[in-house]
Amino acid sequence: MTRATPPADFPPELAARLARLAPRLTALRRDLHRHPEPGWCEFRTAALAVARLLDLGFAVRMGADAAVAARRMGVPPADVMAEARERALAAGADPALVANMGEGLTGFWADLDCGSGKADQSRPQSRGDPGIEGDEESIRSGQGPVTAFRFDMDCNTLTESAAPDHRPAAEGFASLYPGRMHACGHDGHVALGLVLAEALADAARSRPDLWGGRIRLIFQPAEEGARGALPLTEAGAVDGVDRIIGLHVGFQAAEGEIICGTQGFFATTKRDVTFTGRAAHAAAAPEEGRNALLAACSATLALHAMPRHGGGPTRVCVGRLHGGEARNIIPAHARLELETRGATADLEAAMSAEAERIVHAAAAMWGCSCAVETVGGSCAAASDPDLAGWIAEEAERMGRFRSIIPMRDFGATEDVAWMMRAVQEQGGDASYLQLGAARPAGHHQPRFDFDENCLPLGLELLMRIAWRSNGPGRGLGG
Amino acid sequence: MTRATPPADFPPELAARLARLAPRLTALRRDLHRHPEPGWCEFRTAALAVARLLDLGFAVRMGADAAVAARRMGVPPADVMAEARERALAAGADPALVANMGEGLTGFWADLDCGSGKADQSRPQSRGDPGIEGDEESIRSGQGPVTAFRFDMDCNTLTESAAPDHRPAAEGFASLYPGRMHACGHDGHVALGLVLAEALADAARSRPDLWGGRIRLIFQPAEEGARGALPLTEAGAVDGVDRIIGLHVGFQAAEGEIICGTQGFFATTKRDVTFTGRAAHAAAAPEEGRNALLAACSATLALHAMPRHGGGPTRVCVGRLHGGEARNIIPAHARLELETRGATADLEAAMSAEAERIVHAAAAMWGCSCAVETVGGSCAAASDPDLAGWIAEEAERMGRFRSIIPMRDFGATEDVAWMMRAVQEQGGDASYLQLGAARPAGHHQPRFDFDENCLPLGLELLMRIAWRSNGPGRGLGG
Amino acid sequence: MTRATPPADFPPELAARLARLAPRLTALRRDLHRHPEPGWCEFRTAALAVARLLDLGFAVRMGADAAVAARRMGVPPADVMAEARERALAAGADPALVANMGEGLTGFWADLDCGSGKADQSRPQSRGDPGIEGDEESIRSGQGPVTAFRFDMDCNTLTESAAPDHRPAAEGFASLYPGRMHACGHDGHVALGLVLAEALADAARSRPDLWGGRIRLIFQPAEEGARGALPLTEAGAVDGVDRIIGLHVGFQAAEGEIICGTQGFFATTKRDVTFTGRAAHAAAAPEEGRNALLAACSATLALHAMPRHGGGPTRVCVGRLHGGEARNIIPAHARLELETRGATADLEAAMSAEAERIVHAAAAMWGCSCAVETVGGSCAAASDPDLAGWIAEEAERMGRFRSIIPMRDFGATEDVAWMMRAVQEQGGDASYLQLGAARPAGHHQPRFDFDENCLPLGLELLMRIAWRSNGPGRGLGG
Amino acid sequence: MTRATPPADFPPELAARLARLAPRLTALRRDLHRHPEPGWCEFRTAALAVARLLDLGFAVRMGADAAVAARRMGVPPADVMAEARERALAAGADPALVANMGEGLTGFWADLDCGSGKADQSRPQSRGDPGIEGDEESIRSGQGPVTAFRFDMDCNTLTESAAPDHRPAAEGFASLYPGRMHACGHDGHVALGLVLAEALADAARSRPDLWGGRIRLIFQPAEEGARGALPLTEAGAVDGVDRIIGLHVGFQAAEGEIICGTQGFFATTKRDVTFTGRAAHAAAAPEEGRNALLAACSATLALHAMPRHGGGPTRVCVGRLHGGEARNIIPAHARLELETRGATADLEAAMSAEAERIVHAAAAMWGCSCAVETVGGSCAAASDPDLAGWIAEEAERMGRFRSIIPMRDFGATEDVAWMMRAVQEQGGDASYLQLGAARPAGHHQPRFDFDENCLPLGLELLMRIAWRSNGPGRGLGG
Repeated sequence: MTRATPPADFPPELAARLARLAPRLTALRRDLHRHPEPGWCEFRTAALAVARLLDLGFAVRMGADAAVAARRMGVPPADVMAEARERALAAGADPALVANMGEGLTGFWADLDCGSGKADQSRPQSRGDPGIEGDEESIRSGQGPVTAFRFDMDCNTLTESAAPDHRPAAEGFASLYPGRMHACGHDGHVALGLVLAEALADAARSRPDLWGGRIRLIFQPAEEGARGALPLTEAGAVDGVDRIIGLHVGFQAAEGEIICGTQGFFATTKRDVTFTGRAAHAAAAPEEGRNALLAACSATLALHAMPRHGGGPTRVCVGRLHGGEARNIIPAHARLELETRGATADLEAAMSAEAERIVHAAAAMWGCSCAVETVGGSCAAASDPDLAGWIAEEAERMGRFRSIIPMRDFGATEDVAWMMRAVQEQGGDASYLQLGAARPAGHHQPRFDFDENCLPLGLELLMRIAWRSNGPGRGLGG
Repeated sequence: MTRATPPADFPPELAARLARLAPRLTALRRDLHRHPEPGWCEFRTAALAVARLLDLGFAVRMGADAAVAARRMGVPPADVMAEARERALAAGADPALVANMGEGLTGFWADLDCGSGKADQSRPQSRGDPGIEGDEESIRSGQGPVTAFRFDMDCNTLTESAAPDHRPAAEGFASLYPGRMHACGHDGHVALGLVLAEALADAARSRPDLWGGRIRLIFQPAEEGARGALPLTEAGAVDGVDRIIGLHVGFQAAEGEIICGTQGFFATTKRDVTFTGRAAHAAAAPEEGRNALLAACSATLALHAMPRHGGGPTRVCVGRLHGGEARNIIPAHARLELETRGATADLEAAMSAEAERIVHAAAAMWGCSCAVETVGGSCAAASDPDLAGWIAEEAERMGRFRSIIPMRDFGATEDVAWMMRAVQEQGGDASYLQLGAARPAGHHQPRFDFDENCLPLGLELLMRIAWRSNGPGRGLGG
Repeated sequence: MTRATPPADFPPELAARLARLAPRLTALRRDLHRHPEPGWCEFRTAALAVARLLDLGFAVRMGADAAVAARRMGVPPADVMAEARERALAAGADPALVANMGEGLTGFWADLDCGSGKADQSRPQSRGDPGIEGDEESIRSGQGPVTAFRFDMDCNTLTESAAPDHRPAAEGFASLYPGRMHACGHDGHVALGLVLAEALADAARSRPDLWGGRIRLIFQPAEEGARGALPLTEAGAVDGVDRIIGLHVGFQAAEGEIICGTQGFFATTKRDVTFTGRAAHAAAAPEEGRNALLAACSATLALHAMPRHGGGPTRVCVGRLHGGEARNIIPAHARLELETRGATADLEAAMSAEAERIVHAAAAMWGCSCAVETVGGSCAAASDPDLAGWIAEEAERMGRFRSIIPMRDFGATEDVAWMMRAVQEQGGDASYLQLGAARPAGHHQPRFDFDENCLPLGLELLMRIAWRSNGPGRGLGG
Repeated sequence: MTRATPPADFPPELAARLARLAPRLTALRRDLHRHPEPGWCEFRTAALAVARLLDLGFAVRMGADAAVAARRMGVPPADVMAEARERALAAGADPALVANMGEGLTGFWADLDCGSGKADQSRPQSRGDPGIEGDEESIRSGQGPVTAFRFDMDCNTLTESAAPDHRPAAEGFASLYPGRMHACGHDGHVALGLVLAEALADAARSRPDLWGGRIRLIFQPAEEGARGALPLTEAGAVDGVDRIIGLHVGFQAAEGEIICGTQGFFATTKRDVTFTGRAAHAAAAPEEGRNALLAACSATLALHAMPRHGGGPTRVCVGRLHGGEARNIIPAHARLELETRGATADLEAAMSAEAERIVHAAAAMWGCSCAVETVGGSCAAASDPDLAGWIAEEAERMGRFRSIIPMRDFGATEDVAWMMRAVQEQGGDASYLQLGAARPAGHHQPRFDFDENCLPLGLELLMRIAWRSNGPGRGLGG
């Protein structure tokens, strides 16, 4: 995929233009931070992004055309979605675009035809047209490589800290909604994606002679819980893509660090297990009950006791268990949230098979019934060392990172793995980079925040990757 | 306590007067049903009742004088109490009386000096006087027996059904507040108590020659969870009482039935157990966690596996368990709601000792800490067959019950047991009666309701007990 | 059954004759103690007893005629039985009688026709005749009541103490065989039965005018583990019996005490549960195993956590668990020995149903298979107070007991309950008496022994019961 | 350690001499197979080996001088050891040598001074001299490298198959003792060691000019359960050793294969855990019991549920659990055999710490006490690739292996790891080779056997390693 010809130098005027865009990154990130939206409910975020990308001349594919609806996992109940939609409209989202998203089809991707010199202006998109899309035929005709960048949009379902020393609270950009917070950095990702789009459109328009191929920006819903990447992938999000780059602010990368490639993504399946028994008065007639809580407790212990695997790392966690109705009633209901993982698809499959067997047997043990719903999942994946090497070289050339780490073991899951694997299976390359940032608290904590100074660094690095992939060298070198 | 002389016949004019009071029962019950208040938060209920009883000439003992505050169990957090207090005031509760109740000292008792011919009008109570009370000395001087009736006031913490075929909803007296509902019938109990007070005051005033001794009406908070009777008892609620009657609408008694005595109350202790561990990423570093949910699950299984007891019936139930923070985080917190029971104090003590040992060991097993809070409890008790026999005779004389059951095994807990046992220990008699009523759904269900036609029956039966105990016969006969 | 006419006085000459038989009791008991035989292997014990009873003129029913072979539970493997048979023959058992017992049909009963004046000498039994029996027709024709006494014959499977202060060891009558010991007192029971037979035959022969009806002595195998009574009962052991007496040395009765009736026998089922999984190297490939030991442990915890029952006492015990092959192999086999109990048949059935469900689910939970074998069982039963009252009266008349207890709760199981219940269902009476004796160690302990001075007391009491039931009064009085 | 100079060719005459020794291998192995001895009881095996090595002129260090007695783990009880000693003497073991071994100090090592040209004949050993040993000073003076080979001597504690198609049974060399069997191949190891000694002594004697340095043959007891290597290592078994070779017949190597180096030995600790509670009658008074079996079951489940480790592979297995006394007695005793493992010392330590905590908490949970005994253990280790490479080259030169595998992950434990690590820590090299052999059944199975045709191959390979290490090249090359 990558060849041994030196890449063209990154033009200083491009770097300068990027520097001028930096304030946009912070402003956008803070606007998004105030309006966090959970998975499959990213109506405002997506509407804002689609509108901007259409304005920039990208060809957008969205709604039912951009996701196999039936493969979505962990879709929230209708009332949660309705509330999010109303908030989005109240906060200025374009109603036609929101209508396009139906019941939570908030994912989309946007293509820039770099070689046309006119950024797809021949294919303007009318908003509100279901399944807006460009001329795929010409896109795939491929005068050059197709390079994709993936950005995730959803927030976490926790309440942001209101502490006076929590910067978003102090500076007035904290979440407007209790139980909703960008506590993972996806607000920064979307900001990066939109400013990158602006820079790319500008660059390709001003020097069409230098650029070729296509650049695709994928905006994914519902990354939390590993729910959103698969239905986009199956709808064609990475079809024909030669290189894909995923990224995350912070995570394993400390301030000033850049991790250029990530390997060791765990394959995973997320399941919700519901046990249903029969209530009974705990003193008068305990024998009439069927104790769903004992079923859940037996299952939880047994799940953690599943055998380790000689073939490689596996994981299991019952992260939440809620059961029972009242202290003096034999519990009739219990529900647990489970995840299994494995370093490979086979290891995960082995764990999943054991887990399914155990939860059903635990229900039977206590005379209960049991329903299992798959609410998330991802495959295993690893970055390509060559592509990660490119990134390391560009990071080196930037001279602005304190530490450049070529590859790191992830030891966790990111559902971008579905896209990475799909690209690799069609002969392309993938890498997942981690952009270091100072953080006062860990990811998924109420006091999470990140130092926005990392964003301009990330913007330039992504632009350099685009330049190396679709600029004059078109992927030559390495 | 009870002697073999035939009691005086219940005067027909008294029965007739009671019949005229019947509509008051329904109206009161429905008003109370609309304003349900959970345990230790019965501000409006108590204020309304105290005001009425003072008007009727009862001597009232309330607030800090009517409960040993430190012995209260399961007191709700300050914000819950504050909300209840505000609602009570907004709904017309007398502010001075509410102020008297401090932080949830909502229990009280009210005495009628039957022999004075003037219903304690010599001892008017100024509302707002902390610890309002009558002249205890003269009450205890005892020209006749002291008979107590106990009524519990608190609601359940569940949301009432809004179904169109749920009568309270259809007829407009459903609970005003989500998460609050009289789903056990205590609204009916309080209505019975207040209309009984009216009937008693009227009767004693109109025929002082026929009545003697004293009648005490005890209004208890926080019966749900067995939290309220002990602090009232320890403050003297049944000191000097010769006979005590507790009652419940429905429960084991079907429509048209009356159960005159109840035995086999289980002694119980209610505990909340909190396990605290350490969170960790479930994939990257599960070994850094200390899994509080596994501690709770291990404890739950072991608690149910505590040995049966050769000395008599015992019970254990973990009725609720909530644990964990997120699917992919090793759970750092878990909490379970536990009750142990025994047919005797010794059996309960044995169960409690085992349970304490188990929960601490379960915490240690998983490297967690564990905090145990006692949030409720009751002793064992049984009705006196003689007193229950009286009641059966009166029920028989009424001729309005389809079925009269002298005594039944309860197989459950009611913290009136603390009062029954205290009365029995000082040489008195106690009985707990169950007043049959049609119910469309079971107690503690969102669609619970009861046929108010049972209330006039109950009123007459209670009045007959009072007549037999404090009327001309003064307890003679049986 | 029992009528209010005073019984005839027990003749002093009978008492005197019994006193002369006392040394026989000790000698017999010690002979039996040296030759203990486990359940279904009582070849020598039974052969010795049958021979003696035939000599005394009893009509004996034995072998396949005295047990429904298919209903036997917990029959030992062929090699254990063969060894016992060889030992029996080597120790002098009549080969023809042993042959009659086939593969462990060691139970039998023997009838004395009291009214004939000749003790069934008209019906001599040829030994070796399969299914030896008397003229049942005439026995049942019933000139008088049929009274049965039941004696159990089997030993325990433990090794007797060789300590110098253990009397059987010191005085040379300790068990000859390791792993075999009369540690429950059944040696004393058989001795009582055989000396009683002698006394009865003698009395009936010498004064045929005084006696009537029939007396049946039932010698039951395999009482330990509740295995032997059911197949005898189903073969007719108590058909037509009017009164049955079971007895036990010691147990709840201290030295000098007699417990005349016993109630509260638990119904029980004894099960052996075998889990089979798949072995695997615990380090190289633990995932290839199916862990039968985890199945057994999960089952054990869950079995003990089965709900208590509102309907009455229940019990469960996994008394033994053996599992696994080697420290570093995932266990492929585990076996547990389980018993469930209930105060009634229904309670036991409820426990059994839960237990069956749990063990199968535990197997499924760990991918194992599970086999359940019922190896013992008994029903619930209680002594008749009238019959127990008779016994108390006779004990009183003897004037030789320090303490006479009319009735006691057993809180345990004895499979004589099958016979007691069958007699009661056909309109007869049953009682189970406990004959106090000093014991240096508890039943089923390697140092168990009992003071043989209790045996003459028991002999006289049984003879008095027979006299009262089949003597001149024939059950009149009470 | 290893240098890049080509080694001297292996002399054809040496190979020819080895071929002549091949029948000795089979004969010796079969003799040892008939007389299997468990760990710390290898009296006959060691006595036979010491005698032979002394005859060959080796300097032997044995008994208390060859093991730190206090560091021995899993030493069998005195009666087991006494029986083994008696059998050894009866089977011809030299009494003086056996006496030297005291209470199970059966390990020893034997040194050949290759450079002296006379195989230590100047230092004849008198048998029976405690702590027989050579002139260590001169051995360490080191005219050349010190090369060690380690052979383990103990058998398994299982009963050998008597099936007619089990070759040892068919050909008359099956184990003489029930419960004792060479089911792992250590009989072959000892045979290899003794015939190698003969070949070495012969070679060094006949061409002293070609050889230098020293060769040490270490005969280790109690490899099964990882009990024997540590006390020998701590007594100096590998002090001054430059290269050590361990080996195993079969295991991961199929017929015709040779695995030249092994890595990924798990560190492990083996523990026996004993729970002690209190017995009680399971029906009459279950509450008086303290259930040691429930403690063991709770521990077993929790041990398997210990968290997986983000730092690398870990293992846990409760391989055996025996608990309880009788079906109807609350179990007072239970015992489990546990092992924990980790790919590194730190991982194992983390598992051990968790396991210790869990078993003590499980005991506390059920009111029992708990005793933990460490009965085995090993460290992690890996073969040196250079030394494994040598071996692969020699195997290649032999031309008699179907498949040569340079290095394989072991995924299990071998306590030779203690010796390997000690050699590596003093700057030496270690390798562990696996000599392929056809086997009709797996290791540790009653029908285990191996095709003795592998032994001559192993002998030549070991001799070639000795030649390369101590022959003319003295380790040059690689």
